[in-house]
Amino acid sequence: MPDSSMPVYEAMRTLRAVRRLREDPIPDDVLSRILQAAVWAPSGGNIQPWRVIVVKDSVKRQQIGDLYKPQWQGFEKSYRKGLAGLEGEALKKQERILAASNLLGDNLGKAPVLLVFCFNPKLMAITDAGLDRQSVVGGGSVYPAVENLMLACVNEGVGCTLTTLLCIEEVVMKDLLDIPEDWHTCAVIPLGYPRGKGHGPITRRPVEKMCFSDSFGQPLTI
Amino acid sequence: MPDSSMPVYEAMRTLRAVRRLREDPIPDDVLSRILQAAVWAPSGGNIQPWRVIVVKDSVKRQQIGDLYKPQWQGFEKSYRKGLAGLEGEALKKQERILAASNLLGDNLGKAPVLLVFCFNPKLMAITDAGLDRQSVVGGGSVYPAVENLMLACVNEGVGCTLTTLLCIEEVVMKDLLDIPEDWHTCAVIPLGYPRGKGHGPITRRPVEKMCFSDSFGQPLTI
Repeated sequence: MPDSSMPVYEAMRTLRAVRRLREDPIPDDVLSRILQAAVWAPSGGNIQPWRVIVVKDSVKRQQIGDLYKPQWQGFEKSYRKGLAGLEGEALKKQERILAASNLLGDNLGKAPVLLVFCFNPKLMAITDAGLDRQSVVGGGSVYPAVENLMLACVNEGVGCTLTTLLCIEEVVMKDLLDIPEDWHTCAVIPLGYPRGKGHGPITRRPVEKMCFSDSFGQPLTI
Repeated sequence: MPDSSMPVYEAMRTLRAVRRLREDPIPDDVLSRILQAAVWAPSGGNIQPWRVIVVKDSVKRQQIGDLYKPQWQGFEKSYRKGLAGLEGEALKKQERILAASNLLGDNLGKAPVLLVFCFNPKLMAITDAGLDRQSVVGGGSVYPAVENLMLACVNEGVGCTLTTLLCIEEVVMKDLLDIPEDWHTCAVIPLGYPRGKGHGPITRRPVEKMCFSDSFGQPLTI
């Protein structure tokens, strides 16, 4: 298979949340490559215990957008409280993120494609399900696919951002999208060509802050 | 930054579990690029609520390997039951996977590097934490980093596989690696150069089985 996709590290270091999206459609061949990338992802026991609903229907998109808006507005209030100590450039940057997020909050349903990721926990071996703390391991068979999909978006020049707020409206979402009882939702990803610059430089902590040698907190000495 | 990494789609369609690993070390510059890839991953609110412990110490690796072995042996029994209906090539393929997994079960601690991913749920907005079903959303801020890291392994020719069985031994793991109270473990990834062919072709369901249009179960019509 000929492969002229971009260098894998370039895709990673330019994948960022693109929230200001145009309304024009995404061609089928582009969308097809993006979905294929998700399907390539590994999962526990290669079970692939997820499915994705590609929502293009404008009425359903609007209904999902209407559900998202108040959830975002509620979340924005708590997010804004977290900015209390910031000033200068750091504050300005957060304000830009909030402005784009508010725009997405008002317009989620206008993105030409909404991808709704579903998962079935009965198909998963969730090794931390019985522990006396928050479980995350089920996500190990779903979010690698989400990451592949978003990296593919970078390659295709398509804007995207991972949202999970609509889990709160899961009952309504399941009804709207005919999702069976055993399946649940874990991500809604709006896709669209970017209004602005799209993917580009990202801000992350240095590797030395994220990685330790041999014990938690011990400086990295590779 | 010059970037001669492989095409992103090629990395995705050749990332597979590599369980038969050589014991010789991974050069620092290779390991450094693999860790950087993880750090580039997105996370909710860009909080990066994970850390990774790079375990090279041979005594600690052996201790982790000793913890893993019985967990794998227990899991193997239930995995083998699931093969009851298989025959022919499908059965042979599963037997090959089991043989490699058993080898890893016996030798996890001999991989030159064990990566222990940790996460802190207090740094996460877990929108499905209060729902009356299995929570997975916390994984959305960790496993994208794990996926980036494994894709980087493909680029670097380094074998890897995502394991989560050691969550069951989390109390001992936390003690062994000085993991603070608020942090937990969510993946142990052995790294090593492959004994066999390493990364290569993968088997996945077709896109049409994984993706629906507008409603769950409705054939994809993009």
